[in-house]
Amino acid sequence: MESTRDRILRISTDLFVKNGFQGTGLAELSEAIGLGRGALYHHIKSKDQLHADIAYAPIRAAVAEAREIRALELEPEETVRRLSNALSEAIRLALNPWIVFFREFSSLPAEDQQRILSLRAEYLDQWSQVITAGIKQGIFRDETPLFLDGLLPMFIYIHIWETNRGGVSEQDIGETLGKFILRALRI
Amino acid sequence: MESTRDRILRISTDLFVKNGFQGTGLAELSEAIGLGRGALYHHIKSKDQLHADIAYAPIRAAVAEAREIRALELEPEETVRRLSNALSEAIRLALNPWIVFFREFSSLPAEDQQRILSLRAEYLDQWSQVITAGIKQGIFRDETPLFLDGLLPMFIYIHIWETNRGGVSEQDIGETLGKFILRALRI
Repeated sequence: MESTRDRILRISTDLFVKNGFQGTGLAELSEAIGLGRGALYHHIKSKDQLHADIAYAPIRAAVAEAREIRALELEPEETVRRLSNALSEAIRLALNPWIVFFREFSSLPAEDQQRILSLRAEYLDQWSQVITAGIKQGIFRDETPLFLDGLLPMFIYIHIWETNRGGVSEQDIGETLGKFILRALRI
Repeated sequence: MESTRDRILRISTDLFVKNGFQGTGLAELSEAIGLGRGALYHHIKSKDQLHADIAYAPIRAAVAEAREIRALELEPEETVRRLSNALSEAIRLALNPWIVFFREFSSLPAEDQQRILSLRAEYLDQWSQVITAGIKQGIFRDETPLFLDGLLPMFIYIHIWETNRGGVSEQDIGETLGKFILRALRI
């Protein structure tokens, strides 16, 4: 059974994706969820707080999973492969929360933006560390991993858009992008 | 001298980036531009039309430039390099219009969304054709160029974010990403 809170989060997420955060009023939320405003406010503190809760979830989960993968202390190539697969799978299973995290970032209160940016930096740092390890082993190029700032947008939008997917199934996106990134990184 | 229309486009673009399209009212636009509503409507048809005009410009210019580059009929590697440099330079010089094109896409009327998607497909088709040429010459891999759906987001967000830029200057982003993509594409 889905809890009331989970249902609120799911329906709000879908509405924010469909009409934007600014374009979604409390009246609309309240109606779509099927709760009066009083009952809705029993579960959420504010629309901003609801937004923050939705936006934190995907990146926080991604940080935790990336830490777990790195804790396995596998070879850099295998770690990159797993990070790529895990990110793709996370986006596949929660595309709308990732879209809110991403597209509605600038609608968040400044304090939440800062916390989200920290989580994002923490996530990218997991990639950065494995790339540095590969550089030290002499298998990756000693170049600024400039692409890291494009990593999350690349993964998310490849899942959103489907025009150039060709024969690659949604399940294989992580594997294919992992190979792409590894070829670009290798000496 | 900046024309009134250019000033309207520039100030609206900046406000849409700052507060979102939905979060920017006509009263606010009117005040920031310094024109009464009547005078403003003399220059624009509607807020939606203004949005569409802003969103079309960067992708339309990118299509034209990519066609010019391909018309030179250079080797595939050199063409990829130039496409990468041109895209990066275009984003560097007009970051806010690209952000509106990108982030506010879902706020556009359905008809404009369709036209923007066609322009986007036309742009990516320029990349797709040069990659196909490289595959035929046996220098690029015969794989679905899945990364194409992530190409524009990757370039745009690397320009927006600056956390992993390290020693790479804004001017060198195109060159660095071009090399990254070429390494990933090469046999």
